[in-house]
Amino acid sequence: MTSKIAIQDRYPAQHANCFGCGRNNPGGLHLKSFAEGDEVVCRYTPPLQCSGGVPDSLYGGLIASLFDCNSAAAATVAVSPDGEVPPRFVTASLKVDFLKPTPVGVTLELFAKAIEVKGRKVIVESRLVAAGEIRASAQAVMVSLTAKK
Amino acid sequence: MTSKIAIQDRYPAQHANCFGCGRNNPGGLHLKSFAEGDEVVCRYTPPLQCSGGVPDSLYGGLIASLFDCNSAAAATVAVSPDGEVPPRFVTASLKVDFLKPTPVGVTLELFAKAIEVKGRKVIVESRLVAAGEIRASAQAVMVSLTAKK
Repeated sequence: MTSKIAIQDRYPAQHANCFGCGRNNPGGLHLKSFAEGDEVVCRYTPPLQCSGGVPDSLYGGLIASLFDCNSAAAATVAVSPDGEVPPRFVTASLKVDFLKPTPVGVTLELFAKAIEVKGRKVIVESRLVAAGEIRASAQAVMVSLTAKK
Repeated sequence: MTSKIAIQDRYPAQHANCFGCGRNNPGGLHLKSFAEGDEVVCRYTPPLQCSGGVPDSLYGGLIASLFDCNSAAAATVAVSPDGEVPPRFVTASLKVDFLKPTPVGVTLELFAKAIEVKGRKVIVESRLVAAGEIRASAQAVMVSLTAKK
């Protein structure tokens, strides 16, 4: 399934305040995720100031943030592929493995996929690709704020 | 040991560019960590705009970022309690458990402690306290950029 409407733009208005991906947060990053095939993809070019301890490498905290928001979107798609007002997921746990440095100044691609749905919980696995290589991977446990319909 | 000099202010200049905690990043958060007793503590009041998907709850990505920087500081202290130019650590993996919502508009306290040193790797465990309760915990695997002296 491919959609031109960002998953975050379908979130209920009262849950669209996220600094990372909320359309109603005027000072936020406004990350957008889209269903592409059987994955959920977020493309984002971080500001150059978001370096890590090593110059020219991206800040790990930002990488975790990107995984966080894209994982929530993937969980939403897993239980509501095309619902107009889908359930909003929050993060119960997030594990990020930083496999190699992520360069700054390039567009990042995050790919996420729900691998298990258990009641209100969805397990999401992700990878971050930059300059043609996988730089980090993540596993998230997401929990729906609203009961599955 | 208690020190009034922030651990990040002892990092080598070429590794002090972190968006989260680098003194040389003009647009960064300038997080500061201090050794207090046998732990490393970072206190920080996030901007109100850093909400998560649920209004009045803090953005999980920011929580991960705070754990990331404070864990690096704890690893530094573990191998170099008072070195003038200590080794800089970067994150190999970070797992965050979000135990309950973290309120916005309050000062957060992050406590970190190195529980194991294995060659260039240091394992750090952390907790985040806000409004008197533990809101999140984390385990990080940190790796030194420079050989232990």
